[in-house]
Amino acid sequence: MAIASIKEVAQLASVSVGTVSNVLNRPEAVSPATRERVLNAMSELGFVRNESARALRSGRTRTMGLVVLDVTNPFFTDVAKGVEAAADASGMIVTLCNSDQDGPRERRYLDHLEEQRVQGILITPVEARNPHLEQIIDRGTPVVLLDCRTRKRNRCSVAVDDVLGGRLAAEHLLAQGHRRVAFAGGPRSISQVADRRRGAAAAVAEAGGEAALTFLETPSLSFTSGRHAGEQLLETDPARRPTAVFCANDLLALGLLQELTARGLRVPDDVALVGYDDIDYAAAAAVPLSSVRQPREELGKVAAELLLEEIDEGESHRHRHVLFEPELVVRASSARP
Amino acid sequence: MAIASIKEVAQLASVSVGTVSNVLNRPEAVSPATRERVLNAMSELGFVRNESARALRSGRTRTMGLVVLDVTNPFFTDVAKGVEAAADASGMIVTLCNSDQDGPRERRYLDHLEEQRVQGILITPVEARNPHLEQIIDRGTPVVLLDCRTRKRNRCSVAVDDVLGGRLAAEHLLAQGHRRVAFAGGPRSISQVADRRRGAAAAVAEAGGEAALTFLETPSLSFTSGRHAGEQLLETDPARRPTAVFCANDLLALGLLQELTARGLRVPDDVALVGYDDIDYAAAAAVPLSSVRQPREELGKVAAELLLEEIDEGESHRHRHVLFEPELVVRASSARP
Repeated sequence: MAIASIKEVAQLASVSVGTVSNVLNRPEAVSPATRERVLNAMSELGFVRNESARALRSGRTRTMGLVVLDVTNPFFTDVAKGVEAAADASGMIVTLCNSDQDGPRERRYLDHLEEQRVQGILITPVEARNPHLEQIIDRGTPVVLLDCRTRKRNRCSVAVDDVLGGRLAAEHLLAQGHRRVAFAGGPRSISQVADRRRGAAAAVAEAGGEAALTFLETPSLSFTSGRHAGEQLLETDPARRPTAVFCANDLLALGLLQELTARGLRVPDDVALVGYDDIDYAAAAAVPLSSVRQPREELGKVAAELLLEEIDEGESHRHRHVLFEPELVVRASSARP
Repeated sequence: MAIASIKEVAQLASVSVGTVSNVLNRPEAVSPATRERVLNAMSELGFVRNESARALRSGRTRTMGLVVLDVTNPFFTDVAKGVEAAADASGMIVTLCNSDQDGPRERRYLDHLEEQRVQGILITPVEARNPHLEQIIDRGTPVVLLDCRTRKRNRCSVAVDDVLGGRLAAEHLLAQGHRRVAFAGGPRSISQVADRRRGAAAAVAEAGGEAALTFLETPSLSFTSGRHAGEQLLETDPARRPTAVFCANDLLALGLLQELTARGLRVPDDVALVGYDDIDYAAAAAVPLSSVRQPREELGKVAAELLLEEIDEGESHRHRHVLFEPELVVRASSARP
């Protein structure tokens, strides 16, 4: 059975195609009796309003696109929950797309969302500079940057102060007496990674003396990358090995924790660890993980609200950049040895 | 700047609207010189092919919808990864929708996906019986049930044997000497919950004697529900309290573990725990969690491949029901006290 057309509905209800269209779009223009007849015909035929036809007429569907870096990272699914809460309240639907930290794949999703004429896009971009995103904004689709800072005036952004977060983590490790500190994360093109590292580097530089920050670059921010980072760490000469690692996110830290423990190193006695995001699993880890806490759901909610505002207000919308402050949560993984 | 129309492109290239349309849909019908002129005009105007217009013509967009019960559950994001891998290989895009275990919300997403004329839908339904889903299938959108068994012949399904999984978990706890075993999970309308409980109940019944299975019903399968289940357990008279809990998923088990530990109960000495799914965090938990392992990514991949096959083959497609076998992974949370 194929999907019934508007023409078949009109035939069954003995009205014109225009009348069926009125029932769909301006029901007040149709008499109650006729409206009833058309609605009955629709339900009998299993008529489904064609969203493509409607989008073509109105130019926009009632959908917002959300493009995240890694859908398997609880940070992003918590953010998505906040986005959905705000969208739900406005009768809007959220299409979740996973760029998987892959530039070409991100571009395919962006193309798709623009082609679908979504009402707006929320995105944590793979690269801070993204000319393709500029074009989409120029062509009229509102875009809000999520968990990514910008100074540009043609879009809103919602982010957490990652430089401050990096500083908090490093200052804590320095205060615990650590001098050989590593920052694990990557790729560097991700602005959150660059900012967190910058904050940590500034704190270590200010400490002076023998304090030094080394960089343990990872290909991604996943649990598996964390395990590989642990292997790398174990290959280092113990006399020169970092005594503390600040990880760009909790997944890396949890992977690192598992690898170090499996190889017989103790956390925090041999290596102290601090993660980032404070996902639910951080506190529940084998060694409860110190972490820099971000307001995850709130971040998504505020970003979605800014997008909804821009959709409503159109050209008159005043773009805003919202910056949240992170906080450090200290647990056993970085307690003084 | 608004999105350029096909008419503006035609004007700038000094060709008819029909020629622009040919360039988009049958480029071989247009001379190379004219094609070049039209493509230049498109790029100058920032023309974006309107997917809605294309969908209206062809009837279908190159998208598949994936509707999951809880996007914050790593089980489903791992499944989504498998789906994306298979979709990617076919140049297909995946729209991820989160029903959040909410029937009306699931229905809104299904309506949306059908209205968008997606090529097919993969879904883990909130309720096993879903008349709305029947209608969507009847109207011609291929649907594959994901992590949900069915005997219906008008769709494919991919699932793991949840009855067997429940049995494996309960038999293990009985073999460890436990006689008062609880099953934590809910709501009961979710077929995975019902099946896992059924398998556990059968094993306990076969054990005979004093062995008994109680039911700790939870409103959802989240980490937070697990914490509440822990509170409930603590309110029970210790002399009659279950000495082992088999949880319907790992999130519940991790929440329960955190709550019990915070209130001074020891796992496994006071209460043994077994989870389900074997997500990455299970092994990394404060007390490494025993769990029933499911082939998560494989599940998503096979489901997507069945859907792609059905999309390709149309009416001639033969529906199949694929059933994977789960396996028990024993860790410290259920070792003999």
